[in-house]
Amino acid sequence: MKPVGRHWVMASRPDGAIDDRHFALREAPETELAAGECELAPIYLSIDPTIRLWMSDVDQPAAPMRVGGPVRSFVYGRVLRSRDPALPEGSLAWVTGAWAERLVGRGALPVGPSHGLPLAAHASVLGLTGLTAWFGLMEVGRPVPGETVLVSAATGAVGSVVGQLARAMGARPVGVVGTAERAAFAVSALGYADAVVRGPELGAALDVACPEGIDIVFENVAGATLDEALERINRRGRVVLCGMIAGYEREGGWPTNQIRPLLMREARIEGFLISSCSSRFDECRARLAELVLGGELRWDVDVLQGLDRAPEALRRVLDGRNRGKQLVQLAPDPWADGVA
Amino acid sequence: MKPVGRHWVMASRPDGAIDDRHFALREAPETELAAGECELAPIYLSIDPTIRLWMSDVDQPAAPMRVGGPVRSFVYGRVLRSRDPALPEGSLAWVTGAWAERLVGRGALPVGPSHGLPLAAHASVLGLTGLTAWFGLMEVGRPVPGETVLVSAATGAVGSVVGQLARAMGARPVGVVGTAERAAFAVSALGYADAVVRGPELGAALDVACPEGIDIVFENVAGATLDEALERINRRGRVVLCGMIAGYEREGGWPTNQIRPLLMREARIEGFLISSCSSRFDECRARLAELVLGGELRWDVDVLQGLDRAPEALRRVLDGRNRGKQLVQLAPDPWADGVA
Repeated sequence: MKPVGRHWVMASRPDGAIDDRHFALREAPETELAAGECELAPIYLSIDPTIRLWMSDVDQPAAPMRVGGPVRSFVYGRVLRSRDPALPEGSLAWVTGAWAERLVGRGALPVGPSHGLPLAAHASVLGLTGLTAWFGLMEVGRPVPGETVLVSAATGAVGSVVGQLARAMGARPVGVVGTAERAAFAVSALGYADAVVRGPELGAALDVACPEGIDIVFENVAGATLDEALERINRRGRVVLCGMIAGYEREGGWPTNQIRPLLMREARIEGFLISSCSSRFDECRARLAELVLGGELRWDVDVLQGLDRAPEALRRVLDGRNRGKQLVQLAPDPWADGVA
Repeated sequence: MKPVGRHWVMASRPDGAIDDRHFALREAPETELAAGECELAPIYLSIDPTIRLWMSDVDQPAAPMRVGGPVRSFVYGRVLRSRDPALPEGSLAWVTGAWAERLVGRGALPVGPSHGLPLAAHASVLGLTGLTAWFGLMEVGRPVPGETVLVSAATGAVGSVVGQLARAMGARPVGVVGTAERAAFAVSALGYADAVVRGPELGAALDVACPEGIDIVFENVAGATLDEALERINRRGRVVLCGMIAGYEREGGWPTNQIRPLLMREARIEGFLISSCSSRFDECRARLAELVLGGELRWDVDVLQGLDRAPEALRRVLDGRNRGKQLVQLAPDPWADGVA
């Protein structure tokens, strides 16, 4: 959906790390609604690493952003005006759209039922974040009780759900994180059996944390971390390749990996895109909601206030400084008290 | 099994390309048979790229060869003496054993039934070569009629069977080979729909040969060839990782690969070891024999005569100069006329 009013554009295309130079605030005029369109007032912007991928002019499933065009993300908001019968005025909806005061266009989908949870939960654990964790772990990884599941970016939005789902399945989740403080959080708050810190000591730490090897790798990062995991992969191990954050801000090409352990261990790497599972989102959301309501699935959000802070929020995610799902909030959460 | 009489030892451990320096002929004394052992007179030595892997001191499923110890391969021969009730004197057997005049030890398995085919067929299309092609393609790749199946080392021992099986399944096999002459042979003799030559032009050639992309890659080589294939992999594509010949003689580590296309296309790379399928070898051999006898599966052997030529035969295989399965013959084929 297209921006109305103040919104962020991509001022220049980054090659490497993003900073303020790559973003600019602009103003877009009011527009009439065509049939089938609605106007949405964002409440939450979902800030995900994949936004950085969209900023690059590389081959990718979605279209890259244009220089001078709006920066986009998943947006959760309220319908202000509507010529779409499926989206009544005042209802809540989500869409892929601009970082903007308001959005106009087609393609928004209703949010709900609320399951008695805040909209922030729908923008995180019940949104694409939680769905990605669920489908990737359950349908590609397929954990068996007792198996060791290594989760990269283990305290990130997707990783923190993966770790908890693995534990709920009776598997043994081990996290890979950026700092010792994150490792402690992974174990104490998210139920990881152990957590190790990225860097030159990772291999030795994995030997200790995964004494029986690794059965499943839920990979959000790739690069050197994945090579260390592959060296310890067990027979018939599965790598769920969900993201390659290590490549998003890398200049000059994507990281490569040593695939020989796959041959040695009859293991596999399998790519996974959540978009392929959309027909089953509602069913899966209900199951995630049950786990949340049953106290088995904790969800953390890391919220920055105001449209102005959206670029800063993306920088936080790419630096791994967010704890839980990173959101930018533009308006009060209508379900903050858990009322549908 | 251990050598008796003249045999080859690994004189030094290679790092890079092998040559005469790495092999030496030695003499081993006669030995008595212990209970459960037999003595085997080799008829065929199976010369496979994996022998080069065994010569390297790298982590691998089988134990590496020792410097000064016997060079080994799969060996097909006749039982001369036996204290193993399952292997009567005069019967045919196969084993992993030394390049030697004779072998003594345990672990040999009976060859047969003959299916009316020469022992050379049992050492190739009905042996681990054909079984590797069958299980890798049928159970990991799982071709669907109309799919494009790319086969690296397409005229090699395994590749030539894979291509023909893919065609028999109604898929569209495309071969990757080393020379234009091999490409012509792949199409005219082995039924490939097209064949392309490795090297700097490979990508452009694949664009022409695989206009609808690649659904299955049967990978024996890996390295740069696999990167080009991955760039053209289709949604839900499967890479059967069967061998990494590109790494066997490479100094200083294994090649790495660009795995990002797996994520983009929800594709997978899966390692495959034929040893895991051993409980079903007999069943599968019978099906391969049917295809051979029905004229649907051509098998070529490239035979060098005499134990002395075994190192030369291995060099041929590693250079891709063999056409079909490379064998070294030490005695007449007892089933040469197809009589059981």
